[in-house]
Amino acid sequence: MPEEIGYLGPEGTFTEMAVMELFPGSQLKQFATIFDCLEAVDDKTVDYGVVPLENTIEGSVNMTLDYLCHQSSISIVGELTLPIRQHLLIHPNYKDRWHEIEEVHSHPHAIAQAHEFLRRNLPGAKLVHTTSTGKAAKLVKETDERVIGAIGNELAATHYGLAIASSDIHDYENNHTRFVVLTKEGKTLSKKDALVGHKVTLQITLPSDYPGALYQVLAAFAWRKLNLSKIESRPMKTGLGNYFFIIDILSEPDNVLLQGVKNELEALGTAVKVLGEYPCYSVEHKVE
Amino acid sequence: MPEEIGYLGPEGTFTEMAVMELFPGSQLKQFATIFDCLEAVDDKTVDYGVVPLENTIEGSVNMTLDYLCHQSSISIVGELTLPIRQHLLIHPNYKDRWHEIEEVHSHPHAIAQAHEFLRRNLPGAKLVHTTSTGKAAKLVKETDERVIGAIGNELAATHYGLAIASSDIHDYENNHTRFVVLTKEGKTLSKKDALVGHKVTLQITLPSDYPGALYQVLAAFAWRKLNLSKIESRPMKTGLGNYFFIIDILSEPDNVLLQGVKNELEALGTAVKVLGEYPCYSVEHKVE
Repeated sequence: MPEEIGYLGPEGTFTEMAVMELFPGSQLKQFATIFDCLEAVDDKTVDYGVVPLENTIEGSVNMTLDYLCHQSSISIVGELTLPIRQHLLIHPNYKDRWHEIEEVHSHPHAIAQAHEFLRRNLPGAKLVHTTSTGKAAKLVKETDERVIGAIGNELAATHYGLAIASSDIHDYENNHTRFVVLTKEGKTLSKKDALVGHKVTLQITLPSDYPGALYQVLAAFAWRKLNLSKIESRPMKTGLGNYFFIIDILSEPDNVLLQGVKNELEALGTAVKVLGEYPCYSVEHKVE
Repeated sequence: MPEEIGYLGPEGTFTEMAVMELFPGSQLKQFATIFDCLEAVDDKTVDYGVVPLENTIEGSVNMTLDYLCHQSSISIVGELTLPIRQHLLIHPNYKDRWHEIEEVHSHPHAIAQAHEFLRRNLPGAKLVHTTSTGKAAKLVKETDERVIGAIGNELAATHYGLAIASSDIHDYENNHTRFVVLTKEGKTLSKKDALVGHKVTLQITLPSDYPGALYQVLAAFAWRKLNLSKIESRPMKTGLGNYFFIIDILSEPDNVLLQGVKNELEALGTAVKVLGEYPCYSVEHKVE
């Protein structure tokens, strides 16, 4: 039976681009929210789930991390980093008339990312918010009596048969989104190309909060020269003021030094949960 | 001239609740996105801006922090923490018939937060996403030919004249959102009641990335027994792999120890930007 991959829909979102890169030719299943997708992984409705984890324009970063930490036994088995490239999409009937666009539809974050472009090139256009960039593209496809535009990626253009009126309209270069692949048990991810390294993600909960507690925890990593690529404190659901930490470490699989860290921290009364040990991939996609 | 307060709209959102608590009776100006609101503070179109910073259901947490760090000279002058309480709202004509609700409208994160309630009580209802809880409430008010519901707060109920069919339908207790008050220059915030402490927020940029770099920075705080209430690494816009840190310290105003930290870190080649030194307020609001 072919493997089924769940992801945050609808068609034409950046998450779908990540899925197609990681699981070409697989059977796909869309979910309306990150939460629904995570639940489907948890109850094994799908074999893998792909959700945005960091710097995303659609969905909440915190939701994914909080789910992993609080509610589930699913783990991260892979990471993919994609550059976020936003384009101005238009109905093919109007492809040479984009300066006449009356309305620009997109997710609020995508509109914010193209703020300078819109101010300079379409100062009179009305900005209309949608719940995803994919939905905005769909609306443009369905509207041929007026000149309206959407902000979205090249997959949305291809999927809905839209023209790219202006490409790379986002204000900042080097804007990337980090997607993670999740699974319930046993499965791993292995992609032939684009491997850039390995990571381990840990959830670290201190026995009590006192000045210098985090400093003490980081000592266990520092003297072993383990390189942290991310650290973030997150509030516990038990109330404000209680925190745990998410730490990403750049580390090859089965690093004996990391086992040492884990043993030491647990001996100190600090809870350590491994959220995943996984390969990291990175691709620079192109406008077709 | 009365002071004008900008905030993330529309009416009936949690951000509006924060504004009414912090600036009762002031002149208010809504913005469609966090970005627009921050820009209005930056160009002094408004005197203060109020935006969600952490654990929000509407808008992006990262957007506010990134704006402060990368683009602006505005600073944080106050913080308010509000509990997130979600209710099922219904047109007053149908207030005793909420079990017949066919569709539930709300922001995807609000729907996710009430997942258990919806599964148990309205398993057949269609879930429809909107760009804010306020917009969902508005739609319910305008729809009286069918029984539909919205998930939102008590302010949305009052503002749109809706009935609260079921209160506190969110799955987790102790879910709070942290809002910050921003201003361009000179102004401070002073609220008589609900003061719970003071914080300083710093942006710390390391001269180069090496294992143990963060550990060295935290040493400056640890030996002075300064208590960190939050730490988060954020990617720089110059590309993946470069990070800076946002650190919140619980500290009274004009703490001489903090000046010592700043001097030391700068002597080590670490850039330190003070994003704000401010009073923190916390209120528990009630269903009217």
